Amino acid sequence: MAFSRDGRTLATAISDNTVRLWEVTKGRSRATFNGHTNAVNAVAFSPDGHTLATGSDDQNARLWDVRTGRTRITLTGHTGPVHSVSFSPDGRTLATGSNDQTVRLWDVRTGQARATLAGHTGPVWPVAFSPDGRTLASASDDRTVWLWDTSLPEPGAAIRAVCQNVGRDLTQDERAAFLPGLSAGQVCP
Amino acid sequence: MAFSRDGRTLATAISDNTVRLWEVTKGRSRATFNGHTNAVNAVAFSPDGHTLATGSDDQNARLWDVRTGRTRITLTGHTGPVHSVSFSPDGRTLATGSNDQTVRLWDVRTGQARATLAGHTGPVWPVAFSPDGRTLASASDDRTVWLWDTSLPEPGAAIRAVCQNVGRDLTQDERAAFLPGLSAGQVCP
Repeated sequence: MAFSRDGRTLATAISDNTVRLWEVTKGRSRATFNGHTNAVNAVAFSPDGHTLATGSDDQNARLWDVRTGRTRITLTGHTGPVHSVSFSPDGRTLATGSNDQTVRLWDVRTGQARATLAGHTGPVWPVAFSPDGRTLASASDDRTVWLWDTSLPEPGAAIRAVCQNVGRDLTQDERAAFLPGLSAGQVCP
Repeated sequence: MAFSRDGRTLATAISDNTVRLWEVTKGRSRATFNGHTNAVNAVAFSPDGHTLATGSDDQNARLWDVRTGRTRITLTGHTGPVHSVSFSPDGRTLATGSNDQTVRLWDVRTGQARATLAGHTGPVWPVAFSPDGRTLASASDDRTVWLWDTSLPEPGAAIRAVCQNVGRDLTQDERAAFLPGLSAGQVCP
């Protein structure tokens, strides 16, 4: 159950494989989202309210277009029921916690898996981002809470790290492979 | 599991009857809150971060002073495990959802019960305030979601309503009974 940030819409998943949106002021159903093939365990609105994320016993998470009610992207990869979903404060990343003992991070725009966070030795239940988005907490049946550093290196930092490790500038082939679309010129500082 | 709004502290209840606070940046335990006599199901920080609310299988909710780690008030009244706790956005009201099929509203400052919201025909699981605080949503095993109007009448409005209904000013006895502590003088406009 989750409110949109403007408070006008409530999303619920309580009775079947669907998710319902409700108009809070009128107390009436606005839309039903069909797609999951098993019970829906978790719902969350993106900070801008345009996207709804869901996690289901069908082992998938989904990103829905709130306006049209259609699935925008199905996030596949977990090998067990998805118990929890949580958007990063900037809305770019979705974290999911699963019965498969992992936490996964997903790029909200593309649906690409960004990282699989392994370490728990039991099903993962809630996941939650810290307000600054840099830490993700996950709690598990294994009776531990893990705090994950979710800051992935920025391109600039990644390039500096590569340059430092190879000890020279990138060759043309390396540049084409690692930095497609980058105009010609020296890469390393 | 809940983050404080400043992101520095994580509260968890995962393994026993206690609640733990963690320093997020250092990944170390900061305090353990002892008091509940059965499993803790839910934790929430007040918006100002000074108070932690918990709900437990011991049928009580508690308000804790985050700084001292001591129980400030034990909220008694539910006749079943307390599954969920949620602060109103202004921090003045705590809502609790219980296995006893009711939702209760509590005055955070005094610990007084403000209202018992009955209607569900099954255990209540999550409860959540809308961002403007005027609506509380509760979801239940009875497969319904209820939206509750949480705005209680203000004293001024209540007095006006009484005056309108009795059609005269209050007698001295009525004033002593209904408005203890109010200085003498006309009550009704």
